[in-house]
Amino acid sequence: MTLPEDPVTIIWDTMLKQLPNNHPEKELQRFYNLLRDYPLRQGKGLRGKLVLLSTAAHGGSWREGVRAAAALELFQNWVLIHDDIEDGSERRRGSPTLHKKAGIPLAINAGDALHVYMWQLLLSNKGEPCSRKSAVLEEFLYMIHRTAEGQHLDLSWVEQERFDIGEEDYLQMVTLKTSWYTIISPLRLGAFCAGTAASDVFVAAGEELGAAFQIRDDVLNLQKTPTYGKEFAGDLYEGKRTLILAHFFAHAREKEASEVRRFLLLPRHEKSEAGIRMILAYLEAHGSIRYAQGVAERKLTSGLEQLATTLGSLTNQAAAGELARLLESLVHRQE
Amino acid sequence: MTLPEDPVTIIWDTMLKQLPNNHPEKELQRFYNLLRDYPLRQGKGLRGKLVLLSTAAHGGSWREGVRAAAALELFQNWVLIHDDIEDGSERRRGSPTLHKKAGIPLAINAGDALHVYMWQLLLSNKGEPCSRKSAVLEEFLYMIHRTAEGQHLDLSWVEQERFDIGEEDYLQMVTLKTSWYTIISPLRLGAFCAGTAASDVFVAAGEELGAAFQIRDDVLNLQKTPTYGKEFAGDLYEGKRTLILAHFFAHAREKEASEVRRFLLLPRHEKSEAGIRMILAYLEAHGSIRYAQGVAERKLTSGLEQLATTLGSLTNQAAAGELARLLESLVHRQE
Repeated sequence: MTLPEDPVTIIWDTMLKQLPNNHPEKELQRFYNLLRDYPLRQGKGLRGKLVLLSTAAHGGSWREGVRAAAALELFQNWVLIHDDIEDGSERRRGSPTLHKKAGIPLAINAGDALHVYMWQLLLSNKGEPCSRKSAVLEEFLYMIHRTAEGQHLDLSWVEQERFDIGEEDYLQMVTLKTSWYTIISPLRLGAFCAGTAASDVFVAAGEELGAAFQIRDDVLNLQKTPTYGKEFAGDLYEGKRTLILAHFFAHAREKEASEVRRFLLLPRHEKSEAGIRMILAYLEAHGSIRYAQGVAERKLTSGLEQLATTLGSLTNQAAAGELARLLESLVHRQE
Repeated sequence: MTLPEDPVTIIWDTMLKQLPNNHPEKELQRFYNLLRDYPLRQGKGLRGKLVLLSTAAHGGSWREGVRAAAALELFQNWVLIHDDIEDGSERRRGSPTLHKKAGIPLAINAGDALHVYMWQLLLSNKGEPCSRKSAVLEEFLYMIHRTAEGQHLDLSWVEQERFDIGEEDYLQMVTLKTSWYTIISPLRLGAFCAGTAASDVFVAAGEELGAAFQIRDDVLNLQKTPTYGKEFAGDLYEGKRTLILAHFFAHAREKEASEVRRFLLLPRHEKSEAGIRMILAYLEAHGSIRYAQGVAERKLTSGLEQLATTLGSLTNQAAAGELARLLESLVHRQE
């Protein structure tokens, strides 16, 4: 058995056990409830699962990866609270975002507290060998720095009303914002948790796979999928610069481009559904969504090819095979 | 010599050295500049100085406390970025707040990144004995949790438009929000950095001294002091619940109280200077600012009395004396 039957539940339980639960005072109980709000909306757990599979593939027991996997999912939870504020997002995992429920000030503060519980989880387990723990901690430091840099680029383009974002710019941004915490670090953390070194190939391959994942995310956002937890076309309401828009602006006639620019610059509450339909029709006419999905698939293929030899040489081939299959599913997922 | 001639500069240099400086890309260079923005507006360094004095008083060399002192000042810097957003503050250390300069989304993200550099500073120094490092890390975890809980209470009262906040409520809130990171943890960190245990008395005494510090902060906010870095009467513009207001509401006639409540509930941009002058006149008439300053002074005396025996028994009496004098100055400071 490479993984337990329900690995995501085990990861989630480990995360939730780390969070405070009961406070005798009503208002501080509410604070604890805010901390547990996103974690209780259980996510897909993809990144945590990658950590466990990578740990097993590198010859460890999946149990040795649980703490890092739970901390990584905790990372995503606090980051999402802040991202949702930064992007002005309204829905997350099928419910209103935290700041829509509690207001921006309380939500920023709850995200900060959750961030600290992530470090607490990483710093617990005193029995762990010092060298292994320190590799995991350093990976988190590096990973969060890259994620914040990518997030800065993404936000700065909206803030500066920039529409000159080409494919190269987009790919640099998502490599920082998404690839590290979604693919590269999970693969590396698995190696560290198994007590071994991480292959250099994880970085280059993970950059491609992470970009593929993010592009698929952007594509899903513009398709009406019943299991999708975020707001349909939220990226257009939030004015995000995606590969889809980069393709559109590179191919649109000036009149079309200026209509779309004007719409994207509107404050969110002035954006009409008719405007969204107009943009979707333009994107359809230029094949921009299809183009993006194609790039995602090519990046998937290229990333997997780069990984093949390394994965083929790992200790536990059953786990390495499961890992490859999970990565393959990234660009065809429906949620 | 218990401390170097300019301890705050040494603390600040250690902090700044931890932050990224140069990036070849213009937009990521701007990101780094945002991270360095508050740190470059050098603060008073009170908390860092307390760590160094406590380290020396406990028989250590002040140098052993520099890392924890710098991390504590870094803590304050990232927290202030987020607090200023949460409170809607406009000025900090004599300049516009970070979100006034860069917008809320980029400022939240910069605060998160700075938070991670704080952990990086604490986790560096691989030569340090494991037990000492772990005591320092645990202190930071505990301290930040308490600070976030106090911040939650403070923000929730504004959010819920509550005016039934009594002296007890206020003191519980500031003990969490201010006392831990301003007094209790600096004293405890000094002991840990000197390789010894912290006296239990630091908690009870530090609660009083921290409350005294925060009450003095609230008093300063309503006095026109030339060296004050924040906005005059900012607490009234932001509708903060202070001990001063608690005293006022406990003594005001209903007509006065309802006028003040109405003003405090206005959105910030509708608050006039005439309204501020009206409130200040009421506070003067009821002696509310004077009352608060009196509470601060009594808490200072009580906190110092509780500390006296412990401070008198520490290894380095010159440093312990300096420490006591620095604590004494907390409620008469002008900035």
